[in-house]
Amino acid sequence: MNNKYSGTVYLVGAGPGDSELLTIKAHRLLKSCDAIVYDYLVSEEVLRIARKNCQLVLVGKRKDHHSIPQVEINALLLKMSNQYRSIVRLKGGDPFLFGRGAEEAAFLESNAINVEVVPGITSGIAAPAYAGIPVTHREAGSSITFVTGHERFGNNKASVNWQLLAKASDGLVIYMGLHNIVGIVNDLIKGGMNPLTPAAVIQQGTVIGQKVKKTHVDKLVYTVEHYGFVSPSIIIIGKVVDFQVESCVPPLANVTMPIPLNSQQYVETSDK
Amino acid sequence: MNNKYSGTVYLVGAGPGDSELLTIKAHRLLKSCDAIVYDYLVSEEVLRIARKNCQLVLVGKRKDHHSIPQVEINALLLKMSNQYRSIVRLKGGDPFLFGRGAEEAAFLESNAINVEVVPGITSGIAAPAYAGIPVTHREAGSSITFVTGHERFGNNKASVNWQLLAKASDGLVIYMGLHNIVGIVNDLIKGGMNPLTPAAVIQQGTVIGQKVKKTHVDKLVYTVEHYGFVSPSIIIIGKVVDFQVESCVPPLANVTMPIPLNSQQYVETSDK
Repeated sequence: MNNKYSGTVYLVGAGPGDSELLTIKAHRLLKSCDAIVYDYLVSEEVLRIARKNCQLVLVGKRKDHHSIPQVEINALLLKMSNQYRSIVRLKGGDPFLFGRGAEEAAFLESNAINVEVVPGITSGIAAPAYAGIPVTHREAGSSITFVTGHERFGNNKASVNWQLLAKASDGLVIYMGLHNIVGIVNDLIKGGMNPLTPAAVIQQGTVIGQKVKKTHVDKLVYTVEHYGFVSPSIIIIGKVVDFQVESCVPPLANVTMPIPLNSQQYVETSDK
Repeated sequence: MNNKYSGTVYLVGAGPGDSELLTIKAHRLLKSCDAIVYDYLVSEEVLRIARKNCQLVLVGKRKDHHSIPQVEINALLLKMSNQYRSIVRLKGGDPFLFGRGAEEAAFLESNAINVEVVPGITSGIAAPAYAGIPVTHREAGSSITFVTGHERFGNNKASVNWQLLAKASDGLVIYMGLHNIVGIVNDLIKGGMNPLTPAAVIQQGTVIGQKVKKTHVDKLVYTVEHYGFVSPSIIIIGKVVDFQVESCVPPLANVTMPIPLNSQQYVETSDK
């Protein structure tokens, strides 16, 4: 291996899709970096900010499709930190909220690699906003819980206690919840949630193609299936959905997100 | 009143303090708008992005200090929409997460004023990140609850159920929790939270002057008092605090935030 550099890895949040929701810092780093290692929840338009000779590597995960194990991503980042001065590890949303950013940061730190986190706007806040739905409202409570819905039901791992959450939190924003929606809804109602609690499903939040359906908890499974919701989608549940202000929705961004699965930019990383 | 315009009010998140965490969209609007109505959790550096003849109006609230009631802010926005083409209503963090942005949006919509929301990075995610603390980690659970701690204890209003939250959510990020920290900690422990659960208090997150103390729930009150934490501070509680990666902390921003109380930029708005 050619250890030319002791590079820095920037763990950068790309935001929810709309490339105008990138931070100024993310934009600066994307423009100047030598390499970008990115997930599939990053738009082609954001990647185009990079310099011409910037190395682009897709390591994105997508359920039920080819994906690169976390240990391989870690190894790739380690290798690249010896080859490049500045590497942007670009993740959809925020790197420290369901982004495994902290795992990569800890791995890099333990290998004495320079690492820096750059927060991004999470889709759990922005996707509802682009549907006119606030995540909190004084008349709809004082709390909102961000929770991942992709953990398997009925296995031995400590998992989400949906029944407790049903009563504890005034609102829920569920990431990656489509696959387990039947179990989630059952548990929420078993936990005492009113089946008529308002809910909304938002696919492709903030970008053209965004699909929004409002419903109630007891109709969530029907809504997801009937309207053919697929990943990436966010589900928001709570009285706060009723405080939607439709006229405040921003124009949807004209970007290609997620990256098409057959993208030419996909680069195999198993050349170790 | 001089109804020259049918202006647009942009409800813009200014992010947590570091002006590089502004979005590209927020920057574009700040640069081009005719007027900015801002909270005290906005830095002077962010305001300097505005054009020279941009009208700046501070309506910031600060506990126990002079503040402008929400109805007056609404009336001001309504008035200004008739005087300017483009008004940025700039709020610290994100306008739809504890920002009352949805209330202002609904008010403007009901008055047929053009309004558009522009998400920002919330301090509840960014302040921990600038302390190297992720808000989620696969080994620390699957959920994180954002909750406001400023509601009074013991009044009749439906309030936060801290006892239920103690067990339901794998992590808590408490905004505006200093004032009620004694009651919050009591309730969390009464609700079954392990008193040795890790916690951290972060004041002035992302900017020079940021103060971080890690502790445990049973020492939170002591930590807040002994180290003299004041607003604006974020409290994060949960196993996730143990997954801190100190070396990934970004450089703190050299900005003046919050706006000093004696700032010259304070403009009384009671000239109606």
